[in-house]
Amino acid sequence: MTESFDAVEVIMAKRDGHRLTDPQIDWVVDAYTRGVVADEQMAALAMAILLNGMDRPEIARWTAAMIASGERMDFSGLSRPTADKHSTGGVGDKITLPLAPLVAACGVAVPQLSGRGLGHTGGTLDKLESIPGWRADLTNAEILAQLDDVGAVICAAGPGLAPADKKLYALRDVTGTVEAIPLIASSIMSKKIAEGTGSLVLDVKVGSGAFMKEIDQARELAATMVALGQDAGVATVALLTDMSTPLGMTAGNAIEVTESVEVLAGGGPGDVVELTLALAREMLAAAGRPDVDPADALADGRAMDVWRRMVRAQGGDPDAPLARPRETHEVRAAA
Amino acid sequence: MTESFDAVEVIMAKRDGHRLTDPQIDWVVDAYTRGVVADEQMAALAMAILLNGMDRPEIARWTAAMIASGERMDFSGLSRPTADKHSTGGVGDKITLPLAPLVAACGVAVPQLSGRGLGHTGGTLDKLESIPGWRADLTNAEILAQLDDVGAVICAAGPGLAPADKKLYALRDVTGTVEAIPLIASSIMSKKIAEGTGSLVLDVKVGSGAFMKEIDQARELAATMVALGQDAGVATVALLTDMSTPLGMTAGNAIEVTESVEVLAGGGPGDVVELTLALAREMLAAAGRPDVDPADALADGRAMDVWRRMVRAQGGDPDAPLARPRETHEVRAAA
Repeated sequence: MTESFDAVEVIMAKRDGHRLTDPQIDWVVDAYTRGVVADEQMAALAMAILLNGMDRPEIARWTAAMIASGERMDFSGLSRPTADKHSTGGVGDKITLPLAPLVAACGVAVPQLSGRGLGHTGGTLDKLESIPGWRADLTNAEILAQLDDVGAVICAAGPGLAPADKKLYALRDVTGTVEAIPLIASSIMSKKIAEGTGSLVLDVKVGSGAFMKEIDQARELAATMVALGQDAGVATVALLTDMSTPLGMTAGNAIEVTESVEVLAGGGPGDVVELTLALAREMLAAAGRPDVDPADALADGRAMDVWRRMVRAQGGDPDAPLARPRETHEVRAAA
Repeated sequence: MTESFDAVEVIMAKRDGHRLTDPQIDWVVDAYTRGVVADEQMAALAMAILLNGMDRPEIARWTAAMIASGERMDFSGLSRPTADKHSTGGVGDKITLPLAPLVAACGVAVPQLSGRGLGHTGGTLDKLESIPGWRADLTNAEILAQLDDVGAVICAAGPGLAPADKKLYALRDVTGTVEAIPLIASSIMSKKIAEGTGSLVLDVKVGSGAFMKEIDQARELAATMVALGQDAGVATVALLTDMSTPLGMTAGNAIEVTESVEVLAGGGPGDVVELTLALAREMLAAAGRPDVDPADALADGRAMDVWRRMVRAQGGDPDAPLARPRETHEVRAAA
């Protein structure tokens, strides 16, 4: 196959501060997925993007190219509307765990395709895998069936969804190129758009425990992602939330699951409950159900019921005792 | 082996505009040579260095680390002083070919360890390999013996000389990170210092046919390299020379050899003769022979004699007919 571009020329264009053309972007993302553009070439390009930036049309095209690298799911045949949520991640952020069953309990299906840990924060899948028997990998048919039956699924994005992003995500983690707004925005939104959700709530973390330390950066990231979602026909809203102290009382895979179950049981730390309810209200509103109050579903045990069915549907035992930390480090606030 | 640093932290430091510490530089160059720092990590670091720069002490330390990655040669036992020349390369630059035998004919030994093509310019070794039988790879003992006997050698730098640079040079070529002054300066000077020459003349090309398009860049590169050489005890001078039109009348491996032989025979294009003599005078002066006029050695055939012995010493036949270009593209200046 004759290649349309030379990787070095594309790298040099961004290195020298030019915008990449649509055909350059389409080619470099596709050629990287095919292995024609080598890891070291994409690493140099990612660093040039991090330092020289991309404008909005470039980011939109890059996102589209990553979506086009794989398959797209379609949930339009479900009887319920769909809503998903994405958090940019922070220490102790276990909100996905109570949130997905809570929203499902309110009549909106939640296809939560999640990731592993990136940088210094643990991933949702890593946390759920502390439940004995629970498995992260589902087929597309299993995802659809579980959404129809239980209403909520938290699982790994399949290998067919935005494969360009999977490869690039792993590369960024080892090359110091995680913290680039164009690459963060396109990574998140390519997966969410390809995943097929009808609406999306973004939880963009700001503060010392988040990737975005400054409010201006976080606002730019949020605005970039909302524009990408809306352009792709996904009703998208974003909240900027504080991550200058860890969320809840615990950080660690199994103990965060325990804390999430406490929230579903009507207890749990106040900040976790508050953010879970705020995001649930946004998701319900984005999916066309602004009148439903998620606090009721938390109080009357319906959310807990969906949690137990969701865990069981993926092979997990919701009653199994969880691993206890071998080492515990307790940090107390100054009086 | 426990590693002293994490590659991502070193990349992020340069990415964020900090200077690298001496231990960081020592480690990253050594770990890259050992394969602990991966190509994609060094590519990201090289792009960060290109875009964010390095100060003089950082460049000096990086150069020292590349020298320390391999062996150093020593020509202090020779009966003659040594001088070498390095050109940053340009289209049609075949000066090395007549220059090395010319300087040797004037009593100064020339250990010219050369490279292959980089970017858009052909390498000296590629050109000489158009001579039937000629070989670029000599052992250190062969280099020393030929310097003692013939007085000039043009050959490949052995694998033991600055192996970190060899690896990085190849990586830069495919990742759009050739044109970084700190990386160009440290690459050239690490090889020349490790090679063991007593004095060095740098021919820094400026203009549309060179890597350095602007005089300011070229001046900075020249000053950086002269400082690196002098700090390492090598008498180093630099000339800035024009590369806005190709040197001589030809560009292409075999036909450049032919043009070089014409210069050694007392003919050849005026600009090639002029630059060859200018660099020869600088090399002789740097090696402590400012009184010798190289024009004499060109006129009386002594330089041609050394050329023939030099080619023959490396297996080449100086009388063999050279390959003729299959395709010729003649460019005529406007009247």
